Amino acid sequence: MGRLDDWDDFAELDFEREERCGFPEVVFGAGKTPEQVASIMKALAAQHDRVLCTRASKEQADAVFKALSSARYISSCSMLFVDSRKRGAQTAGDTVSEILANPGGMGKVIVCCAGTSDLAVAQEAALTAHLMGSRVSLLTDVGVAGVHRVLAHEGELHEARAIIAVAGMEGALPSLVAGLVDVPVIAVPTSVGYGASFGGIAALLGMLNSCAGGVSVVNIDNGFGAGVVAHRINVPPVRFET
Amino acid sequence: MGRLDDWDDFAELDFEREERCGFPEVVFGAGKTPEQVASIMKALAAQHDRVLCTRASKEQADAVFKALSSARYISSCSMLFVDSRKRGAQTAGDTVSEILANPGGMGKVIVCCAGTSDLAVAQEAALTAHLMGSRVSLLTDVGVAGVHRVLAHEGELHEARAIIAVAGMEGALPSLVAGLVDVPVIAVPTSVGYGASFGGIAALLGMLNSCAGGVSVVNIDNGFGAGVVAHRINVPPVRFET
Amino acid sequence: MGRLDDWDDFAELDFEREERCGFPEVVFGAGKTPEQVASIMKALAAQHDRVLCTRASKEQADAVFKALSSARYISSCSMLFVDSRKRGAQTAGDTVSEILANPGGMGKVIVCCAGTSDLAVAQEAALTAHLMGSRVSLLTDVGVAGVHRVLAHEGELHEARAIIAVAGMEGALPSLVAGLVDVPVIAVPTSVGYGASFGGIAALLGMLNSCAGGVSVVNIDNGFGAGVVAHRINVPPVRFET
Amino acid sequence: MGRLDDWDDFAELDFEREERCGFPEVVFGAGKTPEQVASIMKALAAQHDRVLCTRASKEQADAVFKALSSARYISSCSMLFVDSRKRGAQTAGDTVSEILANPGGMGKVIVCCAGTSDLAVAQEAALTAHLMGSRVSLLTDVGVAGVHRVLAHEGELHEARAIIAVAGMEGALPSLVAGLVDVPVIAVPTSVGYGASFGGIAALLGMLNSCAGGVSVVNIDNGFGAGVVAHRINVPPVRFET
Amino acid sequence: MGRLDDWDDFAELDFEREERCGFPEVVFGAGKTPEQVASIMKALAAQHDRVLCTRASKEQADAVFKALSSARYISSCSMLFVDSRKRGAQTAGDTVSEILANPGGMGKVIVCCAGTSDLAVAQEAALTAHLMGSRVSLLTDVGVAGVHRVLAHEGELHEARAIIAVAGMEGALPSLVAGLVDVPVIAVPTSVGYGASFGGIAALLGMLNSCAGGVSVVNIDNGFGAGVVAHRINVPPVRFET
Amino acid sequence: MGRLDDWDDFAELDFEREERCGFPEVVFGAGKTPEQVASIMKALAAQHDRVLCTRASKEQADAVFKALSSARYISSCSMLFVDSRKRGAQTAGDTVSEILANPGGMGKVIVCCAGTSDLAVAQEAALTAHLMGSRVSLLTDVGVAGVHRVLAHEGELHEARAIIAVAGMEGALPSLVAGLVDVPVIAVPTSVGYGASFGGIAALLGMLNSCAGGVSVVNIDNGFGAGVVAHRINVPPVRFET
Amino acid sequence: MGRLDDWDDFAELDFEREERCGFPEVVFGAGKTPEQVASIMKALAAQHDRVLCTRASKEQADAVFKALSSARYISSCSMLFVDSRKRGAQTAGDTVSEILANPGGMGKVIVCCAGTSDLAVAQEAALTAHLMGSRVSLLTDVGVAGVHRVLAHEGELHEARAIIAVAGMEGALPSLVAGLVDVPVIAVPTSVGYGASFGGIAALLGMLNSCAGGVSVVNIDNGFGAGVVAHRINVPPVRFET
Amino acid sequence: MGRLDDWDDFAELDFEREERCGFPEVVFGAGKTPEQVASIMKALAAQHDRVLCTRASKEQADAVFKALSSARYISSCSMLFVDSRKRGAQTAGDTVSEILANPGGMGKVIVCCAGTSDLAVAQEAALTAHLMGSRVSLLTDVGVAGVHRVLAHEGELHEARAIIAVAGMEGALPSLVAGLVDVPVIAVPTSVGYGASFGGIAALLGMLNSCAGGVSVVNIDNGFGAGVVAHRINVPPVRFET
Repeated sequence: MGRLDDWDDFAELDFEREERCGFPEVVFGAGKTPEQVASIMKALAAQHDRVLCTRASKEQADAVFKALSSARYISSCSMLFVDSRKRGAQTAGDTVSEILANPGGMGKVIVCCAGTSDLAVAQEAALTAHLMGSRVSLLTDVGVAGVHRVLAHEGELHEARAIIAVAGMEGALPSLVAGLVDVPVIAVPTSVGYGASFGGIAALLGMLNSCAGGVSVVNIDNGFGAGVVAHRINVPPVRFET
Repeated sequence: MGRLDDWDDFAELDFEREERCGFPEVVFGAGKTPEQVASIMKALAAQHDRVLCTRASKEQADAVFKALSSARYISSCSMLFVDSRKRGAQTAGDTVSEILANPGGMGKVIVCCAGTSDLAVAQEAALTAHLMGSRVSLLTDVGVAGVHRVLAHEGELHEARAIIAVAGMEGALPSLVAGLVDVPVIAVPTSVGYGASFGGIAALLGMLNSCAGGVSVVNIDNGFGAGVVAHRINVPPVRFET
Repeated sequence: MGRLDDWDDFAELDFEREERCGFPEVVFGAGKTPEQVASIMKALAAQHDRVLCTRASKEQADAVFKALSSARYISSCSMLFVDSRKRGAQTAGDTVSEILANPGGMGKVIVCCAGTSDLAVAQEAALTAHLMGSRVSLLTDVGVAGVHRVLAHEGELHEARAIIAVAGMEGALPSLVAGLVDVPVIAVPTSVGYGASFGGIAALLGMLNSCAGGVSVVNIDNGFGAGVVAHRINVPPVRFET
Repeated sequence: MGRLDDWDDFAELDFEREERCGFPEVVFGAGKTPEQVASIMKALAAQHDRVLCTRASKEQADAVFKALSSARYISSCSMLFVDSRKRGAQTAGDTVSEILANPGGMGKVIVCCAGTSDLAVAQEAALTAHLMGSRVSLLTDVGVAGVHRVLAHEGELHEARAIIAVAGMEGALPSLVAGLVDVPVIAVPTSVGYGASFGGIAALLGMLNSCAGGVSVVNIDNGFGAGVVAHRINVPPVRFET
Repeated sequence: MGRLDDWDDFAELDFEREERCGFPEVVFGAGKTPEQVASIMKALAAQHDRVLCTRASKEQADAVFKALSSARYISSCSMLFVDSRKRGAQTAGDTVSEILANPGGMGKVIVCCAGTSDLAVAQEAALTAHLMGSRVSLLTDVGVAGVHRVLAHEGELHEARAIIAVAGMEGALPSLVAGLVDVPVIAVPTSVGYGASFGGIAALLGMLNSCAGGVSVVNIDNGFGAGVVAHRINVPPVRFET
Repeated sequence: MGRLDDWDDFAELDFEREERCGFPEVVFGAGKTPEQVASIMKALAAQHDRVLCTRASKEQADAVFKALSSARYISSCSMLFVDSRKRGAQTAGDTVSEILANPGGMGKVIVCCAGTSDLAVAQEAALTAHLMGSRVSLLTDVGVAGVHRVLAHEGELHEARAIIAVAGMEGALPSLVAGLVDVPVIAVPTSVGYGASFGGIAALLGMLNSCAGGVSVVNIDNGFGAGVVAHRINVPPVRFET
Repeated sequence: MGRLDDWDDFAELDFEREERCGFPEVVFGAGKTPEQVASIMKALAAQHDRVLCTRASKEQADAVFKALSSARYISSCSMLFVDSRKRGAQTAGDTVSEILANPGGMGKVIVCCAGTSDLAVAQEAALTAHLMGSRVSLLTDVGVAGVHRVLAHEGELHEARAIIAVAGMEGALPSLVAGLVDVPVIAVPTSVGYGASFGGIAALLGMLNSCAGGVSVVNIDNGFGAGVVAHRINVPPVRFET
Repeated sequence: MGRLDDWDDFAELDFEREERCGFPEVVFGAGKTPEQVASIMKALAAQHDRVLCTRASKEQADAVFKALSSARYISSCSMLFVDSRKRGAQTAGDTVSEILANPGGMGKVIVCCAGTSDLAVAQEAALTAHLMGSRVSLLTDVGVAGVHRVLAHEGELHEARAIIAVAGMEGALPSLVAGLVDVPVIAVPTSVGYGASFGGIAALLGMLNSCAGGVSVVNIDNGFGAGVVAHRINVPPVRFET
């Protein structure tokens, strides 16, 4: 008779990725068992000063807490991480707002979205870039149907070296923002919406077809991916510093 | 360790929307926690005489009842609202039928659909327009496969200044109705159907391709959106009155 | 041996449509032979004071000029029409700009688009509403990526009883406009764009998913349909006048 | 060096199909060279009293006329055929109207459509059923946006043993007709339309989702297929006659 | 405060449908509450000798049993019906096999499918046609990948006046069957399959593109619809009998 | 009143398939009841020395264990099988790793994937080919974003007579592998991914469009199908042995 | 002022591919200028004894004939090739039939399709495998709607080590064939068909969902790709010979 | 009678865009008449030192040459531009290769693609970034099926501050490249391919689902958009210089 678990032969980890790509391998929590997440994060934590797991459930977090007592879980954006850097104070706090408020990040990334529905994705993007070392500001009340509120932030937008615009439904926010600035805008479509939004396809298509220059797009709900791109723009590799 | 709730930084409300667009911001319940809905509705109720939440669940309703004892929940179309106008008697009653029967609305909007399956969406449309101030009549037995029943209502259809036609499956009702009248017909595709109806896409495409003049379309199941459009047609802004 | 032409049995015209729906049957030129268009328009012109053919080619126009010397062809939006009303001076002029500039229309419809690419569809919408009797204004420089230009028209937008917003690519203009006004906005997606615009689907989906209230949508490139809806909103049937 | 033509090894014909399925193999003209069509039809004509080629071009017709002087080409529906039956008088005439008017068909099939745009497909269906031996009536002015005209034919519809309803755009005609009768309705979506009609997909989906009983559907523009099905319903195989 | 139930105003029933279309209105169970199904079926049973509800759940069946003690529920195809005809013995039995084995039906309909996965849809088709009065035979082991088993039934296939072919996955069975017979084949795609079967779309497209003549198609999983069409072919209305 | 179970008339088994196609009929577990799976497997086990059920649940396994005490269940890839060959030692072991490590298979098939997410599908492919008689090697750390790890296996890849490349997301692994070898590569898209991966469609399209020669594709998540194809390539039928 | 041609910097050729993958790089003609094709083929011919260009136009062939006098063009399947092997007699002949009839190929590949419409793709597959060294037989009259003709070839099918099944429309041929044999079947969907065949998508989906084992699929119309896969199965690399 | 041209009222140009977004408005040539392009470019050239038109035809180029004698047209990527900067020597040369070879650009952008088919899009990207002021290197022989050639460039890839990866078919190149570097990779899907590549959708989906970090995507064939994003990353606005 068979056994219930045959996962002892799962894939080797890619420990060289930090050297090659600038940040250790990141764990994608969805679809893994709590035990798998815990053992992968423990193995990574033995080699790196930061370890990150996205799309983590409460159950996965509980399993990781047992293996790594210093792990932190931010439920509002389903992120689980360990930060054992000396400057770890940079991630002090219980909420995304508190964590982003810590001093010490480099450059400036702005993440903007229109309201509560896109907030989890926007927080994933913001926290990712923050953990990688960027200073990040999160604007949550900018939407295409309330254009005066967007314009109220026009000054601050010019301080950013990279901007992430998160939007569901018609996905028009990146165009609006890109029409106001001269830095790259990373667009993140979200699966928020109903009917013919088709789980984010409407927003994705809108963003790919942006009439404004300087916009590029990541996958639906991929706040993490946008955070990586924005951080790489905001803080180029050290070898390029004069 | 992280906390379970980081929603303290959710978006500011758009209190100026009533002045700009004629009705206060409306809450979209789906995907929000009961607590979020309750605190948003309470904040809006402090500023406006009517507050509306669509796609509200029973749990959200219970949370709102605690915060706003005058709130009302119509489960058949998942709408939750507060009406503190003096003429609040206009929304007296426990069912959509009873509420629509109250006297006092302006002009006339007719909402029609073919049967029980599309009823929730039709009620959402009707109650939305009613709350905004329109007189609304709801016809629930008009369908393209029983054309004689449609013709039986031909006289009443000519009394409406705007007509909302709700239909799933092949979505042919708006064409049939628009062929009989000279006022705008707002078509609402519903996700009712199975197989190749694709959650309302068949009805949506049918309506967009209507061979009859005067038809425009809102998103799948978007009874609320249709109610707003029909009310704006039925009762133009006061500045246009002679 | 067969003959090349068997079109002698084509469909009877619907002469009662004007009485039922407020405007005579309109001819859709695409896919008809020049001879068919000419004979249909001649038959309609014998019964009505205005006859309209949309999507008309130069060849169809030439055939109609022979049958109806008073016909007019506006190549920039492919419209062909006869206006034999006494107040026919209302359609004097050789370009859409000149025709719209004639005095005498009722109410006000505004048609807006972002630039030359959407202009043909916007003109089709504008000329349709004008021919039906509306006063129409056409704004051609309002786009989501240049939001300051939209705001420069905010005052004029409030004069309209119905607004048509025409846009290709991401289709965000209707949301932007609807966030500023309290009248119905009819959205027209255009097939302008490339790559993942899919001939207008991206714009169509964007518009159906508009986060702003009061927006309804017509088919891709259907300027005519939008013109009919806007006119019906702008000039309600006479029976509703007090 | 290669040659321009290697078509000498094309497929053997299926001469037994008439016995098995009741009518000889039918040639689908599109994509074949005039020479291929001519040689296939000549081979079939040597074995059968009727030979039919659908989607035939004028060039194919000319090639066939040389090989088979008795061939007939009806350009309005792109059909090419030979009828060498004694009762060949049944296909006398130069147009579909004239051919259908010949006496002698069995039972009754009604083909209905809304106007000139769907006429070619409707004629293909009608002529197919006629050639197979059915009596066929073609109604060209019945459409969902002019429901009174449909009702005017209600009596005649009850004479048919099978009805073919041809429609593009929203494809609602089959539902309307099927709501009035108790015989099978074969629905044919056409590629007529523009924008979000997607070459007939909107009509196809509408028909598959018909809310009326007794409707089945054939491929887009497949008038021939509908004609075959309707004929088989209208004139069952001889072995079923008492 | 609102109430939980506002369904007192649901649609009037179409009691004239039997006269118009040959069978009383059929209830589509999915999406209705047990109470709604029970009250609709009770109302219909007061007027008609047979009442049918498709896609009925066990819960709906239990509610109906209380209201109509003679109701019968066949769980294997989710059908619920009342048969109060004198010849009600025709529906005696507890399983589809037993019910179809009763003598007395007219003509012959054959329903065929490839195995257990498509069986529920095939039974829905068979039982529908049987309830309407057809004699029905159900073949459950004919599939395109085991062609010899299909050929073993070739003789029986020629006894049917209409054949229903049910298939999921690649949907090739109707083509195979239609290549062997001269009567109409009604194809029913099923949602059985995985991966790129897309819930039946692969089978639906395969059937619409059948290379064999005489095939028409109904919606995915629509066994009921196929049963209606097949019965109407098998037993034409009485007025056509000599 | 109806009964709950009418499944006594399910399809006959195809006992001749082993002779015709080289392996007995394989049971697809999904959608069948535990009882159905158990009775089908018992019937097959009476005729064949190996019986295989894919997509089997724990509940189905438990039912089969009661009927066939020698059955084995590998939960990590949801496979259930009986192996009563004398050389049954070939399938000794509790995990896929252990089973594949048994000596005695013929030729060599390599199955490769990028990590834990695609592992279940890769194991289904590997175990299928192993059960049919192939020697199989499973590489679980080869992915397109870590190309150096792929190259580290270049030598081993040249030992295989057929290679199965399993990948989700962008599905690029088969192209990378096929660029390195001269044997057939069978590509298996998996439904792993999120957002615009559309349940494996992105990977499927990527694989169909592979720029490398020698790649063919099976359905999404169809590890079983790939295993069959690879085994047939690796071990041709005995009649082709010299 | 600019110049019309900047193609001097086009990509280097991959001369090592023959060693790595068993056959030199193959040129895909579509989208290249005649001059580009000629210069690429000339460069390859200097290094290899066979050079192949698929999807070649007559114009490209003419340009190549000037550069390589021994080039051959088979217009019926748009293939252009040079064969300078000593055993070049193997490709003697002007048509695909004549070329395939030459003795000397290894093993056996069968390519089958249903008729003239799929012939070009089937010839591309057959000629590709032949040029690579396989013995190839082409059957052009096997289709799912004429199953008796398929069975007539059952004996010959068992001689093949790999079978290519080419089909448009519903794409059912591979399932039918795979149900009869025990070797791999490579399925090639073709873009033949109309309406809802969507340029081959219906056939592609049908093939991916084949209910028969041993089927894998290549891209739409990709006869070349199928030929490569079949040859690699039929003639394994020399290192695997005992 | 109408006139043929009504384009006198086309949209005002957005002269402030350079100040706001860092580069003057760029003209999209496709769909504009030669005269429109010429008059728009002339108007822009009066205000700016560089003017760019993408997707320009030879006819548009000829019209512009008459209006602006210093205009330059690069036919291989359909770009038309004027460069009147003092350092205009930077764009000296007749081909993209020659132009990119001029000294003086800032930072480094690498554009890579796999061969001749994607070259036009890659050149559009490269020339755009070059005109904006970046130093650009174009690699044309890197593809996923020839991974050793990609690795040969690994050193040079690390010199770039931004990398553009252009690919059609399966679109895997960006993943491969991003697995090797730590700077942002902008992915450009191209419409190159056939069958199920669907005009670039396969490549687009592949890129959106990239398993490698740091990848963002622009629209199909949108080399221009990628060039803008890469330049903005490579040369941040002056205000961010220390």
